[in-house]
Amino acid sequence: MLALASARRLLPRPTRALATRSFASSSTEPMQILESVEAFRQVRRALPPNATLGLVPTMGGLHEGHMSLVKQARSSCDFVAASIFVNPAQFGPNEDYSKYPRTFEKDVALLEKQGVNLVFFPSADEMYLPSHRCYVDPEGFDDLVEGQCRKGHFRGVATVVTKLFNIVQPTHAFFGQKDAAQVVLIKRMVSDLNLPVDINVVPIVREADGLALSTRNQYLSPVEREAASVLHRGLAHAQNLFEKAKKDGKTTITASELRDVVTEEYKREPLVTAIDYVSIGSNETMQELSEVNMVEGAIISVAVKLGQCRLIDNIVL
Amino acid sequence: MLALASARRLLPRPTRALATRSFASSSTEPMQILESVEAFRQVRRALPPNATLGLVPTMGGLHEGHMSLVKQARSSCDFVAASIFVNPAQFGPNEDYSKYPRTFEKDVALLEKQGVNLVFFPSADEMYLPSHRCYVDPEGFDDLVEGQCRKGHFRGVATVVTKLFNIVQPTHAFFGQKDAAQVVLIKRMVSDLNLPVDINVVPIVREADGLALSTRNQYLSPVEREAASVLHRGLAHAQNLFEKAKKDGKTTITASELRDVVTEEYKREPLVTAIDYVSIGSNETMQELSEVNMVEGAIISVAVKLGQCRLIDNIVL
Repeated sequence: MLALASARRLLPRPTRALATRSFASSSTEPMQILESVEAFRQVRRALPPNATLGLVPTMGGLHEGHMSLVKQARSSCDFVAASIFVNPAQFGPNEDYSKYPRTFEKDVALLEKQGVNLVFFPSADEMYLPSHRCYVDPEGFDDLVEGQCRKGHFRGVATVVTKLFNIVQPTHAFFGQKDAAQVVLIKRMVSDLNLPVDINVVPIVREADGLALSTRNQYLSPVEREAASVLHRGLAHAQNLFEKAKKDGKTTITASELRDVVTEEYKREPLVTAIDYVSIGSNETMQELSEVNMVEGAIISVAVKLGQCRLIDNIVL
Repeated sequence: MLALASARRLLPRPTRALATRSFASSSTEPMQILESVEAFRQVRRALPPNATLGLVPTMGGLHEGHMSLVKQARSSCDFVAASIFVNPAQFGPNEDYSKYPRTFEKDVALLEKQGVNLVFFPSADEMYLPSHRCYVDPEGFDDLVEGQCRKGHFRGVATVVTKLFNIVQPTHAFFGQKDAAQVVLIKRMVSDLNLPVDINVVPIVREADGLALSTRNQYLSPVEREAASVLHRGLAHAQNLFEKAKKDGKTTITASELRDVVTEEYKREPLVTAIDYVSIGSNETMQELSEVNMVEGAIISVAVKLGQCRLIDNIVL
């Protein structure tokens, strides 16, 4: 991780002084970077009481996908906060926590350019004390296909998002459709725990060849990067099949028909080293369907390994 | 449970009308009873933005112990809210959820008399949708003596308190020292999940013979009630032993010495049908100690059955 001194260079005035006065407007103040919960709370309290505050939670490694969340937050809220925190609680012991891309200076420049007001950039020690015991446990999410592949991942996500909501106290929060199961989780959690935050879901941003933007795309070698367009191509085949069946007047299509066209496409690509899953799930719960109703639709979500790199994607029917 | 009509009699004006204007002061408005999350949120939004709001979460069956919490909230906050909700998630399958005392009209009269502003009185269906999945899980609390006796109890408490905090959005909340492990849990949870609420702990209120006030004391027959003073008597013996050792210049005392004087006292009472535990625990974590340091002290907590009734008590050394 970059030294915190880099952050401080972008924050010329002391946090304490800022916190004691109100923001006059969302556009006249330079972006502030806050590293502690207490510093963030002070600045939050200084915002006008009825102002809307949009939060874009990120793990850094920012790309145009994140920027689409920021832009939507910027266009719909008085103030925008982004968090940059690589959350250890959502990584499994054999996952890429230590090598996950950390590009703080570039991230900050991108956020500043989009008119973000506040950046919350805590350390892992600031977020998880050694005495930490309480987790938000979303029962059943480890049984979803993505949960089976990443045991405990959703508990880590639910816990950190609850913490971020309590620290930042946004009125609105913005999540990408890219992490489809995460979106289902966040909506479930907001309902179950009565979190007073309006959840907004932003469509996937794709490269010209269809590859969904992801921080982890950086792990791909040039040949893997080229092969990675297969993820979306498989999904597009299934969508075409679904649309054709609809046009033909069918009322349902079996999940296995949809799954097969995706899987066949992935098997055709020699650089695909593993297909973790091709899931045909309910739009609302992500639970597996055996048959898809043309009216209700479904979500097809996939996880595929190209070399050592695990990529996910999805498409809503 | 009493019919909701009883609640409505105490709420002459429609909630909608109330919610659209601000409270002029904490004392000029009659107490309002809100039964839905949305109704409560509307009224909450109408409070002045910088006002303090104290929450006293209860399961009803109110007594002077609860009133001491309300009085402290009343003396330290601009507005006071109480919740009345018998939380199914914190009762085990063989516990007294269905027969737990529900005394709504009496409770409301007591709260009104103490100048409470808002009462949140939701149904179980309002608080837990059939689709509910997310729980706040306090790891390790099921290993504490009270957790071992009531598996899942602390998860239920943590979940409902998180929900109540998110709905009521209090600045301060008030809990009784009577439920010692619950106090440890709430403080841990507020720290771990960064809940923006100031936690206040209020001492145990006791009858003249030392019995700690409890809604469950209503279950006691007259002879059991008389015998119930044994709980505090045992604790007082241990406190005397601790004070004497301190006076004698000892720096530590073993947990077993303290436990023995309590247990002996309880064994002397024939109406005691079971001693669930006599715990000598850390003040901060409630984890069992083998030795008590005179400077750091400890908390002695007990759970005892008199006939069918399970009572708890504790004393801080």
